[in-house]
Amino acid sequence: MSFHTAVDVIRTKRDGDVLSNDAISWMLDAYNRGEVAEEQMSSLLMAIFFNGLTPGELGTWTDRMIASGERLDLSGLSRPTVDKHSTGGVGDKISLILAPLVAACGAAVPQLSGRGLGHTGGTLDKLESIPGWRAFLTNDEVRQQLEEVGAVICAAGQGLAPVDRKLYSLRDVTGTVESIPLISSSIMSKKIAEGTQALVLDVKVGRGAFIKSHDQALELATTMVGLGLGHGVATVAQLTSMDAPLGRAVGNALEVTESVEVLQGRGPADVRELTLALASIMLGLVGIDADPAAKLDDGSAYAVYRRMIQAQGGDPDATLPTAARRSVINAPHEGVVESIDALLVGVVAWRLGAGRARKEDPVSAAAGVVCLVREGDVIERGQPLFELHADDDAHLQVGEASLTDALVIGEEKVNNRPLLMERITR
Amino acid sequence: MSFHTAVDVIRTKRDGDVLSNDAISWMLDAYNRGEVAEEQMSSLLMAIFFNGLTPGELGTWTDRMIASGERLDLSGLSRPTVDKHSTGGVGDKISLILAPLVAACGAAVPQLSGRGLGHTGGTLDKLESIPGWRAFLTNDEVRQQLEEVGAVICAAGQGLAPVDRKLYSLRDVTGTVESIPLISSSIMSKKIAEGTQALVLDVKVGRGAFIKSHDQALELATTMVGLGLGHGVATVAQLTSMDAPLGRAVGNALEVTESVEVLQGRGPADVRELTLALASIMLGLVGIDADPAAKLDDGSAYAVYRRMIQAQGGDPDATLPTAARRSVINAPHEGVVESIDALLVGVVAWRLGAGRARKEDPVSAAAGVVCLVREGDVIERGQPLFELHADDDAHLQVGEASLTDALVIGEEKVNNRPLLMERITR
Repeated sequence: MSFHTAVDVIRTKRDGDVLSNDAISWMLDAYNRGEVAEEQMSSLLMAIFFNGLTPGELGTWTDRMIASGERLDLSGLSRPTVDKHSTGGVGDKISLILAPLVAACGAAVPQLSGRGLGHTGGTLDKLESIPGWRAFLTNDEVRQQLEEVGAVICAAGQGLAPVDRKLYSLRDVTGTVESIPLISSSIMSKKIAEGTQALVLDVKVGRGAFIKSHDQALELATTMVGLGLGHGVATVAQLTSMDAPLGRAVGNALEVTESVEVLQGRGPADVRELTLALASIMLGLVGIDADPAAKLDDGSAYAVYRRMIQAQGGDPDATLPTAARRSVINAPHEGVVESIDALLVGVVAWRLGAGRARKEDPVSAAAGVVCLVREGDVIERGQPLFELHADDDAHLQVGEASLTDALVIGEEKVNNRPLLMERITR
Repeated sequence: MSFHTAVDVIRTKRDGDVLSNDAISWMLDAYNRGEVAEEQMSSLLMAIFFNGLTPGELGTWTDRMIASGERLDLSGLSRPTVDKHSTGGVGDKISLILAPLVAACGAAVPQLSGRGLGHTGGTLDKLESIPGWRAFLTNDEVRQQLEEVGAVICAAGQGLAPVDRKLYSLRDVTGTVESIPLISSSIMSKKIAEGTQALVLDVKVGRGAFIKSHDQALELATTMVGLGLGHGVATVAQLTSMDAPLGRAVGNALEVTESVEVLQGRGPADVRELTLALASIMLGLVGIDADPAAKLDDGSAYAVYRRMIQAQGGDPDATLPTAARRSVINAPHEGVVESIDALLVGVVAWRLGAGRARKEDPVSAAAGVVCLVREGDVIERGQPLFELHADDDAHLQVGEASLTDALVIGEEKVNNRPLLMERITR
């Protein structure tokens, strides 16, 4: 490797020139060893925010993040592996249904997940509302459960792309989160290191998503698909609308309950629709010809779900925590529900106790919001719109204050964008 | 003051919005107290590199840097105060001549200076080659010397704009030096805090300057003049060419010797020309009607120089350190000197030992380069072009290697840009 200095690397990117593979590798390795200071890396990250990374630079950047840690070997499994990643939305409980569903169809789903931060929930937080369920598995336990059950949802091990963890903490405090190459490499380095053969990316766009603009979501999707394909992972991205919450329930235990409804062939239509669409893509990627709708309706997906929960110490028949305090928000006048603002609903659920402001904060299992109406519903004055759940009155009051603005009541139905938008296969 | 977070401030600037005065004050104060981390400030500095600061933001930023420390009170002096700042060049020994010259004309010159870094020399390093001379004075000593001698060249006290020192160290390692608002506020906060009534800025542009482009130099000059005027300091900027070295000598003791020649009415024409031009501006700013050329020729400027050196413990008659090793570079063929590259000459002088790579490095008093020809000279094959001075053979050889490229020999005289360019008074 040639001689590099952090200042040269920063200035090269700052001035719009292309970094050599050697320079990127040196910078990330030296940062990981603590030889490049946090203030130098944050300055480079801000330069990347402005000047981006070329596809070549991004490939090297991602390679080096993967190489900073271990890589799971799932090649010995008897089933093909396929995973899903969502960029995060409000009421997005799809993983809880999708992993057992796709496993029921014959694939292995290694869903290594994270926790919620800000207004979007985390899959692990949701499952932890089930008594006894544990998020932490060893690599051997992951492989064994994939072989025996076909689906695992657990915490991504500390060994996967450790430099990403360091970079993510830094980006969080230095205003450098919202960069497409940095988001892409963060997500894809972990998914590639996890060892899956195939991957579907649910890229959320809209009010309740991190990415509000359609063009940016498209760019993010295309970038991540390119990275996956470049690393030998069969990758497809599905753009989906995150203007309104997904399903009715927003909150940890509330979403587990709704997921079980869908796994039993019931539940909200939008949750079922998105789950089936993503399942079809995943099965197509690994060449399995199966009918996922039938697997929901005949109970076989639910059976895998129960085994998956039990394998990680959870009791699928246990009563989930319920809220000590509830209240209802009623319609101030009659009309048609024009829109429900996913961001506001997400923020309220978070304030009610369902989410965390900092990584180390605890979350409430029971807190959250249930949306009692959907976009397009005709409503009467005084009709219940939202049900709020919290552990105490203080939280309940904080949540109530801002929820009325989340719903626009108009005179006629509005054509909102469809749930499923472009699919990017490149 | 309202509630701010570092991430909000960074994101506001990153997204191209204008920071409130309150936000800027909070950020700099919190950084100075250690509550905003280095990696947060460096990320903001890089965002400022890209998105700049509005005049209003820059004024507040500079105010806050000044307010972070003490402000020298020179109002009690019997003479008007006027200072000069140069953005740094090769062979730029103007301060050594200008300060006593302007004092000889009746003004007081509080020249609070820095050390050299990289390929440009520092005024304090040059004067420290005089046996006994000391750079550090108390504020009372500064005032007393200004009253009694009229000129002081000394180290800027630690108490002036201390947050600038912290920011400068950070910018140095994070690739955020080359930003016009950051350069401007760094220079002007110290000059304003120093308490001078008037100020001339010698803004260098060209190969040997930090700013290579004329447009950028013009922008820097205009920005600094605006800041000075906005803070009640009568400020004028003079753009000057730094394509070729200024004068013949580049090195610490070598430049002191050349300065004394100019103070005695002799010396290189370009050094005399620039000194007189800057002296005229300075005298005009404080309303003194005097003929600086006469003060050089009649020895009165030199007399003030001697008193200035003596007042700080130096012996103006002492023999200066001389180099243990010298060598000469001869012309490879006949022709006309088309150009001499100030940057290369500066780098060679630095490698010979005259400059430092890091702030804590020592410098050689004797090392340097003497240019034996000027642009436009007709030369013979074998004629001496440069004389190299070093303390040992190792340094000498390192310097010799790259100096031949510093001079372009052509067939006829080239019209290079004039030494004196625009004057910005706004």
